[in-house]
Formats: sequence, structure tokens, C-alpha cells
Amino acid sequence: MSAAPTPLVIGIAGGSGSGKSTVSQSILQRAGPELVAYIQHDSYYKDLGDLPPTQRAAINFDHPNSLETEMMVEHVTQLRAGNPIEVPSYDFTIHRRKPETQRLDPRPIILVEGILLFTDSNMRELCDLKLFVDTDADIRFIRRLQRDIEERGRTTESVIKQYQATVRPMHLEFVEPSKRYADLIIPEGGYNQVAMDVFMARIQAKVREYQTHSPKG
Amino acid sequence: MSAAPTPLVIGIAGGSGSGKSTVSQSILQRAGPELVAYIQHDSYYKDLGDLPPTQRAAINFDHPNSLETEMMVEHVTQLRAGNPIEVPSYDFTIHRRKPETQRLDPRPIILVEGILLFTDSNMRELCDLKLFVDTDADIRFIRRLQRDIEERGRTTESVIKQYQATVRPMHLEFVEPSKRYADLIIPEGGYNQVAMDVFMARIQAKVREYQTHSPKG
Repeated sequence: MSAAPTPLVIGIAGGSGSGKSTVSQSILQRAGPELVAYIQHDSYYKDLGDLPPTQRAAINFDHPNSLETEMMVEHVTQLRAGNPIEVPSYDFTIHRRKPETQRLDPRPIILVEGILLFTDSNMRELCDLKLFVDTDADIRFIRRLQRDIEERGRTTESVIKQYQATVRPMHLEFVEPSKRYADLIIPEGGYNQVAMDVFMARIQAKVREYQTHSPKG
Repeated sequence: MSAAPTPLVIGIAGGSGSGKSTVSQSILQRAGPELVAYIQHDSYYKDLGDLPPTQRAAINFDHPNSLETEMMVEHVTQLRAGNPIEVPSYDFTIHRRKPETQRLDPRPIILVEGILLFTDSNMRELCDLKLFVDTDADIRFIRRLQRDIEERGRTTESVIKQYQATVRPMHLEFVEPSKRYADLIIPEGGYNQVAMDVFMARIQAKVREYQTHSPKG
């Protein structure tokens, strides 16, 4: 009777340490992973295997040019059209794509996450709902520092150096201005339960569309 | 079978000219006025009839102290408990409350709007969903200028004078810091259809609670 529903594409952006991933995980868990196709911009880092090591070391991984966003845009377009995709896997230690990819099937909710997501106009156009997680810069730095020390064995000094050399300048140049494109701004990220309740209502409305269209769904 | 649902209290704050009223009107129209009890903080300006005219002229109407927020908090509490209230009417020309009040019945959605709403901790606690409409200061000033010239016959010079004397200082001192308490920040206000769709999903979920509880509702 009614036209087939199209997936709801939710884009989640925000600075390093803002709480983007907590928002994504919260949506994934509450909606149920079987209803959500979850893509991270990080999987689309360019393969730098052909660059000599000295040039590789000079690459700014916080700059939009370090990512193959066109491929991600094509992938989200395919998911939206109901086709499965093969998501690249990235080996951060050698800055190369791994030979294996990960199959991702289309789902009612397509969740796309990345610091630089809204800097790309094609990506913005694909998002039905653009969320920007906005957290004070000091809190973001503290979270990054704690994570890099605990999970990556980094020193405080090296974290500060990278933060000042690329993370902060790229944030000011690209991430902060891209906030302007957001449909909604989430203070504090995924621990903001009231905001999560609001998004879940929107997500459940989309899921109901699918259930109405295909009662067995 | 289930407990009686309680209304959803939505607070909408944001600077002068931010587009708060457009958000409120959009929610009112889309939800249906019969489901929404709509209260404006402006109705609760203090009655200054007993002050001599010279003292009245010195009152800063952009300061939280010019409003009888305790009465509004009591009214929202009553609505939430399922009781009707009598909303005061304010005559801005003489800075007095009119003798007549307006009866407002409890509804599934209680929508409370005001520039200074989130400066009051009791008011914040009453809100289930705190929305802050965030619009650039230049755009807000332009809207205020146009509105005051068109609808209130003011001169450009008098609008600028008032803006600089009280509107802007009170914005920086009270309104902007109160943004921190928001659950969600809405860029641009009521013309942001994507944000409106998200809120409508949350509102409709609440309305369904009422319908499930009372099928005749």
C-alpha cells in the first residue's frame, strides 16, 4: 500500500574526546544492533603504504585529506539504496588498509560517526539527521589524555605535543566551523540521557515505518 | 493496568530574537493545541503598579528579578499534577497585571517558553526536556530590530539604545550561561525542520502513552 521506507541516516560529529562514540554506542544498544548499520569515518583512512616512511610521518591525520571520504559517501549511498557494502579495515600501526573487508548489510538506521563528518558537503547531504556532540575543549583534552595514556600507552608529553601540533589546529579550522551544519547540538555527549530519549523516539518512529511495511520485520 | 502517565514538560529558552516562539508555535501546530498547555514566562512579569513612575522607568525588564518566576514554577507544578491554573495577563503599557486571568487546563504536553527560563533552578528541575534555541547574535539583533520597528513602531535608535543598555548585558550575564543547562541546543530555531521532526517523535511517544492509558483520549 505505502512506498517502501528508506533508512534514516544519522550523522554524529564532534571533536576528539567529545563523547561521539558514547552517543553511537548508546543508540546502537538501545535501538538494537540488528536495526543499525554503524559506520565510522576512521575506517576510511587512506592507504599510505606506497609513501616512503619519512613522507608518511609528515601526514596530518587530523586533516580531512587523510580520509577517503568519497568511498564512504558511496557506501552510505549504497546502504541507503538497500545494498550491502564492504567496509575497509585500517591498520593504524602501518597506515595501510588490511586486505580483509567487513560486509555490512542495509538496516533501517544508518549511523555514521566521525570527527570530520560534516566538513564534506556530500556527506552532509546524505544525513537525514546531523548531530554534533559539543563538549568543552578542556574536558575533551582530559578525556583524550586519559584514553591515550590508558589504552595506548602514550606519555603525557607526547599526547600534548600531538594535540598542539595537529588535533587542536584542525579542530579550530575544520571541526568547530562544521558545527554550523548540525541539526541539533548535544551538550556532553552520550551521558545526556534526555537527549538520547529524544533520538530514540525518532529512531523508533522509523523502525515502526519498517514494521508497518513488512509485518514480519 | 499501567500507572497514569505524567505530562512531558518541555522548556524552551534562548536569547531575544533567537526563534524561540517559532519553535513553540511549530510544536503547538504540529502536536495540536488540544494536547499542549503553553505558558510564556512573559505573562509572569511583576506588577509594578505600586511603584512611582520614575522608579518604574528604572526597572530592568531583561533581568530575572523582573519576573515572578516562583508563581510560574507553582503553576507548572500544578499542571503537572493534573490541576488547572489561572495564568496572569500582563499589560506592558502600564507594567501592571490585568484583573482578568486565563484558565489553562492540564495537557499531555506542557510547553514553557522564556528567555530567562533556565536561569531558575526550580524551573530547570521541572523541565523534562530543556531546549535552548541558539542563534548568532547579529541575526538575533536584526530580527529584534525588524520586529520592534514593524510591530511596535519603534525607531532604530531606540532599539539600539535598549539593546545596548539591557538586552545585550543581560544576555551575556544570564541567558548565554544558562545554555549550559540545556539537554539539546537547536541552531536557528523553528525553521529547523529536522529538529522539529525529532521533537515531534518524542511528543508523539508521550501522546501515545496517554492514548494507551485512556483509549477514549
